Amino acid sequence: MNGAEALIRTLLSAGVNTCFTNPGTSEMHFVAALDNVPEMRAVLALFEGVATGAADGHARMTGVPSATLLHLGPGLGNGLANLHNARRAKVPIVNVVGDHATYHTKYDAQLQSDIETVARNVSAWVRTSQSTQELTADAVQAVAAAVGPPGHVATLILPADVSWGEGAEPASPPAPPAPSKASSEVLEVVVQALRGGERSALLLGGRAMREHPLMAAGRIAAETGVKLLGETFPTRLERGAGLPPVEGLAYIPELASVQLKGLKHLILVDARAPVSFFAYPGKKSYLVPDGCEVHELAAPDDDVTGSLEALVEILGARARQPMVRQPSRPERPTGDLTAEKACQAIGALLPERAIISDEAVTSGQTLAGMTAGAPRHDLLTITGGAIGQGLPVATGAAIACPDRPVLALEGEGSAMYTIQSLWTMAREQLDVTVVIFNNRSYAILNMELERVGARAGGDRAKAQLDLGRPDLGFVQIAQGFGVPAIRAESAEQFSTQFERALAEPGPHLIEAPVPSILPAWQLRAMPHALRAIDALPRPVAAALKRRLYP
Amino acid sequence: MNGAEALIRTLLSAGVNTCFTNPGTSEMHFVAALDNVPEMRAVLALFEGVATGAADGHARMTGVPSATLLHLGPGLGNGLANLHNARRAKVPIVNVVGDHATYHTKYDAQLQSDIETVARNVSAWVRTSQSTQELTADAVQAVAAAVGPPGHVATLILPADVSWGEGAEPASPPAPPAPSKASSEVLEVVVQALRGGERSALLLGGRAMREHPLMAAGRIAAETGVKLLGETFPTRLERGAGLPPVEGLAYIPELASVQLKGLKHLILVDARAPVSFFAYPGKKSYLVPDGCEVHELAAPDDDVTGSLEALVEILGARARQPMVRQPSRPERPTGDLTAEKACQAIGALLPERAIISDEAVTSGQTLAGMTAGAPRHDLLTITGGAIGQGLPVATGAAIACPDRPVLALEGEGSAMYTIQSLWTMAREQLDVTVVIFNNRSYAILNMELERVGARAGGDRAKAQLDLGRPDLGFVQIAQGFGVPAIRAESAEQFSTQFERALAEPGPHLIEAPVPSILPAWQLRAMPHALRAIDALPRPVAAALKRRLYP
Repeated sequence: MNGAEALIRTLLSAGVNTCFTNPGTSEMHFVAALDNVPEMRAVLALFEGVATGAADGHARMTGVPSATLLHLGPGLGNGLANLHNARRAKVPIVNVVGDHATYHTKYDAQLQSDIETVARNVSAWVRTSQSTQELTADAVQAVAAAVGPPGHVATLILPADVSWGEGAEPASPPAPPAPSKASSEVLEVVVQALRGGERSALLLGGRAMREHPLMAAGRIAAETGVKLLGETFPTRLERGAGLPPVEGLAYIPELASVQLKGLKHLILVDARAPVSFFAYPGKKSYLVPDGCEVHELAAPDDDVTGSLEALVEILGARARQPMVRQPSRPERPTGDLTAEKACQAIGALLPERAIISDEAVTSGQTLAGMTAGAPRHDLLTITGGAIGQGLPVATGAAIACPDRPVLALEGEGSAMYTIQSLWTMAREQLDVTVVIFNNRSYAILNMELERVGARAGGDRAKAQLDLGRPDLGFVQIAQGFGVPAIRAESAEQFSTQFERALAEPGPHLIEAPVPSILPAWQLRAMPHALRAIDALPRPVAAALKRRLYP
Repeated sequence: MNGAEALIRTLLSAGVNTCFTNPGTSEMHFVAALDNVPEMRAVLALFEGVATGAADGHARMTGVPSATLLHLGPGLGNGLANLHNARRAKVPIVNVVGDHATYHTKYDAQLQSDIETVARNVSAWVRTSQSTQELTADAVQAVAAAVGPPGHVATLILPADVSWGEGAEPASPPAPPAPSKASSEVLEVVVQALRGGERSALLLGGRAMREHPLMAAGRIAAETGVKLLGETFPTRLERGAGLPPVEGLAYIPELASVQLKGLKHLILVDARAPVSFFAYPGKKSYLVPDGCEVHELAAPDDDVTGSLEALVEILGARARQPMVRQPSRPERPTGDLTAEKACQAIGALLPERAIISDEAVTSGQTLAGMTAGAPRHDLLTITGGAIGQGLPVATGAAIACPDRPVLALEGEGSAMYTIQSLWTMAREQLDVTVVIFNNRSYAILNMELERVGARAGGDRAKAQLDLGRPDLGFVQIAQGFGVPAIRAESAEQFSTQFERALAEPGPHLIEAPVPSILPAWQLRAMPHALRAIDALPRPVAAALKRRLYP
């Protein structure tokens, strides 16, 4: 058996059964081996960023590693941005990156580069396999590194001759080690914090945002009154009717500071102490208030659910009923279409068990509120801040969950980095409804331009944020990629089109032309607004900011 | 003056007057400073691979560094593939990559990564500027590293606080040092090789493929009978009527071996000894025949033209008339459209002073022959083998040369990596005619699948190379990006559409649906064909392979 086939069989025996591919010459033996191992599903992408982002979305939904097949350093380079997001998402991915034959590298042919260096930043594990005989042992280690916990990106570099060489034997990865629960010492400290009568919050992240840990956290909150905060950009948040509400930390650090204000204990559960997404002149980066103690109940490599359950036991909160969201939906919107109304329509119509890949940036600001009481759904967000992941993640999630409706909510700017995803959606006939909020600008940068303290931009600066010259025609672009598409001209039309897209199988795209959600006056007023909110009586301030970041 | 503005002024004083951008929050001060320094042209791209490829194309045409403005590690990652091509092209580029504020990095916020590591492979020079006061001195070094010779990619990482800090002073880079000509010892050896009566060739690459060095090489050939070979993927080849013909080395190593067979001296002029692009089982990587001596007349950092001129002098060849291409054009093609006929139409209609960005992969196989006697033009090719550079390079070349018609010849597969280029072409109203050869497959991989020795692919392997499910609709995609587009249904239509696209200002796209140029029987026959060609009398073999690789 050649290396390529043994590698595929080894991946399969570890449960890795889907590979997102954009192969070239050095990967042709892997491609040829697919005919011998039909259990491995290979999903072709037109661009590597689609493949890596889809692997991320797939792994978020399955919990087992996805594989990618990429072509040397430049192919991996094209996939780096979404691997960065996957790294921050702590999901398991095994990249298989083809390389020149081992004896060919010394000639430094055109495509030669130091692939290990390219892989380094995003990968917890990198190895160039040196022989066909060692390949499957290397693959076992790659899978183990990817599985964690927490999940990691592992990159296995596969020289062409290692792939085509004969004499390989498939191997089986051992079961991953069981992660450990919070120790009794840690539990003791956390119980004291929760019982001490001071203001406290659990900050949930990573795998703590799924049903079981959320319900445990909800019991703890019901018993102790602790606040449930969630990290700003969850890997996978289960939410909606019947699940405990979690207050997501705001992206804007001034707002997050309001959310954190007055806390004396912040208890981390697979999450990190909050820091500002970017630095801003004269503003602080570390957002934990002075005098607030930070405790870690469960680190990312711990048994997150087990640690929360242990805390429930110690607190005697097993019988507590967590506060959960009641079913409720907004009305269908009417009149001129705005981003808020599109989010309202989504809240009104969201189907059961939907998966939402959210990269709508500014336009999605009211989504959380509008869908809070919608049927249970999963929310996948931009964990690493590298835009261009929304469409690929939706693609991978739809491959993983063919029986669930998938929504991809995109800004027109963020959609453009990996627009080629649409073709894979069409090719695989994935049940994805793509909504493009088209406000014809990098709207968030209009905000950031002011927030970083740069003088109110002149014409040339503003031109750098303007995506309306020319307008992007998403209906035509989508149709060119084989995805049926339509443009919504009113709120009523949007609802009707959204309903129809959900009802019909296969992918659909709706372009929603909307005004930017942050008009200039609001931006200019924001620092004042924040100070004003902050100065209000706490319940009023809290209600106000919940409206902004529900 | 803040760091950003002083940086821009420093770049300008070094002749760097165009910056290809895809900024984010950390680059907002650079963006704001554009209003103070209108001499710096900022060209917005929707994707970083467009920005880096355009910087490459721009630098190929101007000879001075282009700048890019990219957003942290993931933004640079998205630009890596085309920076790989730029590195191999030896063109000067200065990347400005925004980073978090220096004091913010320790918090490892979502977008944090080790940007220096991401930059390492493609960059001859990398530095993270540590203070506003040192920034312009760092920029001077970045420009010096980029200028070379030969040109390099230099990456200057710009933390947000270094950018927004006050107290910076613009600096002026010193003139680059003059490169040296070939020494008398080297000239002596080369003269002996050329005068010794043995079969010899000059292998021209890099900057040796422009008018003046080509004319010098032509004089040397006229004097000595030396063969003029060119590297397979030139950075910028000036060719057409009135210029000496150069026989490009074939991509397929068996064919290149035929071209090199019998040589006793191979004289490198800004080129490397030829190696196989990929390794193939049982085939050799190093293509220089046994018994052939390799001499280096001029290394990439030498004075290439000066070295050739010195050789002309020593040989007493100053008065020789180089053999040059005579003007000649093929007829306009008729009947069903094929890739060959599209190339024929291009040869028939190529305007004066055109710039061709060629990434047509298999479909462009007859382009060189069809345009050999066309009016003088520049040919820009895929120097590093990382597909997705053709459209960006055309974009940059068109910005650099607004008075020259630019052609981008693309395979439908290669076009897909950086299709967002079309929007920048529309936004800047660039005079680019894009031809998409759509054969609905990664045709070259169909060939490579067989050539690497993988068994003739089964259905699942073949599916990985199939781009016809669904068909890509380039007319719609282009229109969605704001570029007028049309589909050619016959050879006559293609010619008419091509003429019209050239006549009208602004960008145009023509989709040319064509059969794959390499039918399966031809692929299977290839090894035999090559052996057969090789066995023929040399002039016949030479004529045959010139038909394949003119």
